[in-house]
Amino acid sequence: MAIPVETFFLDPASLGTLQARIQQMIAGGILSGRFRRGEKLPSTRKLASHLGISRITVTLAYTELLANDYLAAKGRSGYFVSENAPEPPPSAAVPSRGDTVDWTRAIGQRFTGGSTPVKPQDWASFRYPFIYGQADPTLFDHANWRLCALQALGARDFTALTTDYYDQDDPKLVEFIARHTLPRRGIVARPSEILVTLGAQNALWLTAQVLLTQRRLAAIEDPCYHALRDILTQSRCRLAPVAVDADGLPPDAIPDGTDVIFTTPSHQCPTSATMPMARRTALLDRARDLDAIIVEDDYEFEMSYLSPPSPALKSLDGEGRVIYVGSFSKSLFPGLRLGYLVGSEAFIREARALRASVLRHPPGHIQRTAAYFLSLGHYDAQIRRMARTLAERRRVLEDAIQSQGLTIAGRGTFGGSSIWMRAPDGVDTGQVALDLRGAGVLIEPGAPFFADPVPAAPFYRLAYSSIPAARIGEGVRLVAKALQNATRH
Amino acid sequence: MAIPVETFFLDPASLGTLQARIQQMIAGGILSGRFRRGEKLPSTRKLASHLGISRITVTLAYTELLANDYLAAKGRSGYFVSENAPEPPPSAAVPSRGDTVDWTRAIGQRFTGGSTPVKPQDWASFRYPFIYGQADPTLFDHANWRLCALQALGARDFTALTTDYYDQDDPKLVEFIARHTLPRRGIVARPSEILVTLGAQNALWLTAQVLLTQRRLAAIEDPCYHALRDILTQSRCRLAPVAVDADGLPPDAIPDGTDVIFTTPSHQCPTSATMPMARRTALLDRARDLDAIIVEDDYEFEMSYLSPPSPALKSLDGEGRVIYVGSFSKSLFPGLRLGYLVGSEAFIREARALRASVLRHPPGHIQRTAAYFLSLGHYDAQIRRMARTLAERRRVLEDAIQSQGLTIAGRGTFGGSSIWMRAPDGVDTGQVALDLRGAGVLIEPGAPFFADPVPAAPFYRLAYSSIPAARIGEGVRLVAKALQNATRH
Repeated sequence: MAIPVETFFLDPASLGTLQARIQQMIAGGILSGRFRRGEKLPSTRKLASHLGISRITVTLAYTELLANDYLAAKGRSGYFVSENAPEPPPSAAVPSRGDTVDWTRAIGQRFTGGSTPVKPQDWASFRYPFIYGQADPTLFDHANWRLCALQALGARDFTALTTDYYDQDDPKLVEFIARHTLPRRGIVARPSEILVTLGAQNALWLTAQVLLTQRRLAAIEDPCYHALRDILTQSRCRLAPVAVDADGLPPDAIPDGTDVIFTTPSHQCPTSATMPMARRTALLDRARDLDAIIVEDDYEFEMSYLSPPSPALKSLDGEGRVIYVGSFSKSLFPGLRLGYLVGSEAFIREARALRASVLRHPPGHIQRTAAYFLSLGHYDAQIRRMARTLAERRRVLEDAIQSQGLTIAGRGTFGGSSIWMRAPDGVDTGQVALDLRGAGVLIEPGAPFFADPVPAAPFYRLAYSSIPAARIGEGVRLVAKALQNATRH
Repeated sequence: MAIPVETFFLDPASLGTLQARIQQMIAGGILSGRFRRGEKLPSTRKLASHLGISRITVTLAYTELLANDYLAAKGRSGYFVSENAPEPPPSAAVPSRGDTVDWTRAIGQRFTGGSTPVKPQDWASFRYPFIYGQADPTLFDHANWRLCALQALGARDFTALTTDYYDQDDPKLVEFIARHTLPRRGIVARPSEILVTLGAQNALWLTAQVLLTQRRLAAIEDPCYHALRDILTQSRCRLAPVAVDADGLPPDAIPDGTDVIFTTPSHQCPTSATMPMARRTALLDRARDLDAIIVEDDYEFEMSYLSPPSPALKSLDGEGRVIYVGSFSKSLFPGLRLGYLVGSEAFIREARALRASVLRHPPGHIQRTAAYFLSLGHYDAQIRRMARTLAERRRVLEDAIQSQGLTIAGRGTFGGSSIWMRAPDGVDTGQVALDLRGAGVLIEPGAPFFADPVPAAPFYRLAYSSIPAARIGEGVRLVAKALQNATRH
């Protein structure tokens, strides 16, 4: 690879003759790892013209670097970084520059230190990955996604690919969501009531910013999705964690003065509880009494392979009180980063203005590809295929749990992709999860889902969206063994 | 198209017999535009099983709807929405549901009402689009982008496409930026000092959130990029607009007490001024005296076809004081939504945590496609091709401006894609821009760029990134005519 001439700048702070400064510049690039062995340097003529200096100065610098074996000459083809050139230090390939800024002072707001746990990037190298929310190569319809992406890359879709939509979205995707996705959840919405987001995470974040202030009170489920709690903590609103039961969020326990209620009625995260119809109505009544807004995260409703999903809360909402969060990242793949918000126009207008300021709009190509994949029916086919596989894995997992004598704490009646488990009292499931990694097993400890980081009861989550059925039995056996060991200590 | 059975829910609030409620449900779907003429209904068996009711009830409801010509039966192939079914009202295809929420109260923070102007989505249908920042189909290397996207959709890149990177980025893209893009600007950075963003907009937004609070003072250029001013207004920090001159931001005019300085040294937005080397050093000195952070938006540095770009401020920064914002959206296409931040690790760590909360990470497929396009050299080739075309357009535009006797207020010495223009005193360029639309001409009025929305002098911007050279002459003639008319009033 040739090193482009634009890479070269004479450091105004460097000292010495022009020739020495050129040598420094090149040797510095090699020592810092920017220029690598075998890479071709610009010709002396080109570099001299770029730097606005005489060619002989560059030639003298190159000759000196040749003598020191930084560079090698290959006949008429020019100068290359020598195969014997010094290697940059492996640990710090790039030398740290002096940083004299006091960042403790310069940083106005901190965002690190949330409760979302660090998850292993190399989860796929584990033999028993009971990990939640990653794509399974055997379940995703890669071939048709590729065809749809290719179609969206075509000349006819040039505008959809390249255009600056400013604060708008791909009209084809919005129309599909309005006409086909939402009606399945019993929801009627106009395009102006829909906003496409960078995944459900982004939808929840936008909603929190628009609805909450430091004075407002948000009720959240306890346990709940840890990333949601981080979003709300960052927004600095007041937080009321409400303990969920086997039917999800109990409306009576939502405290007076609550402004916004965050809930996952279809499939409580992480306990998997499905909220019964009567409680849904009661929740809407409670919200009306409080004059509160409900934010409904309807994640995984597509994974209803055991019984049909209940209607969304939003479909029962005659007052515009429910803001609905949907996601394609869960059912397609998380790297897609595509979700949507549905709500009253007054709300969507503010969320749209904020989204425009934060990121303008989700990339056009992603939106158009999803619109094709959905409208050609591939999405439905994939959901059906996933449902069959997940139903089988769930059966195997429940059998294994039973035969190992482990305790289920919650599971979705309609399906889903995980089971919420309870360990024997006194067991630190965080430590068990770490120990299990050595045996190739990934489980999710329960603590990060709780508002109080030292929970009374030890939970963990076993997800089956990425583990083949054939490995579930052995994986659960290893989990049981690790729990037994932990109980003995 | 068949209407999926999941679309059907019996509204718990509906009245009457079960049969009447089914008729209501179907008729309501047709009247609201959710079910369209010719669409196929589920079979009576399927709908009955889905709703958990007897099949005869569904059959009776369908028969009644047939009699009323909502539905039509086609022999053995089933029931369809009749071609004579009532049409939904065209203006409100979906009836507005009662919205009893007081959104004035429910919305905690407002984000609408910024100074970013509404830009026409249909700019491509204008004959003379002097519009800034949209992709030109004749300049973009669509074929190679498509090949790179296809490669990134391949089985070998399945993980890059689908994975949840949590708070991380595609390592291939980050490495390319560190090894090849930044060195061209004289910048040395480790991967941990780089964060990929949803375009430069997202980079500026993240930076503002991390560095600013309500107590801090941000200095911005006046005029400046309106979206930046909206970002800072939303962050509620204190703002000090500093008037730029022909060399860009004057360091001496930055007020004492400034915490963060936002600047566009390569190519001031919108005046196109290039900051000379001496002033760059003076700006760094001023920032050191203030103990302020500099945010350098290095947009359009690639468009240096008249003279080589000056080194980035960041390359002269020995203290970690400069945060660098780069973008691929500008030089590739805006719908890509891909940019990056470079800064000290302490800063990048907070920006990364915030990005994770707001949107997790830019979609994997977009990152990998860009990494291929860059590393295969297509990006450089495209930049060279754009430079040739823009140089030609710029020559034609300058000639046309001269021959029409219009006044240039600023232009980049090294290239760029727009010229900053001054209209005769007293002319409302906002009104002129509106008038010109009727003649097929799009220009950008200058007012939204200024901190004071009623600027002393009337400016406008003529961009040449999307208008063919052959149309520039006539376009400028129409602009000159409209300005003459405006002066007469």
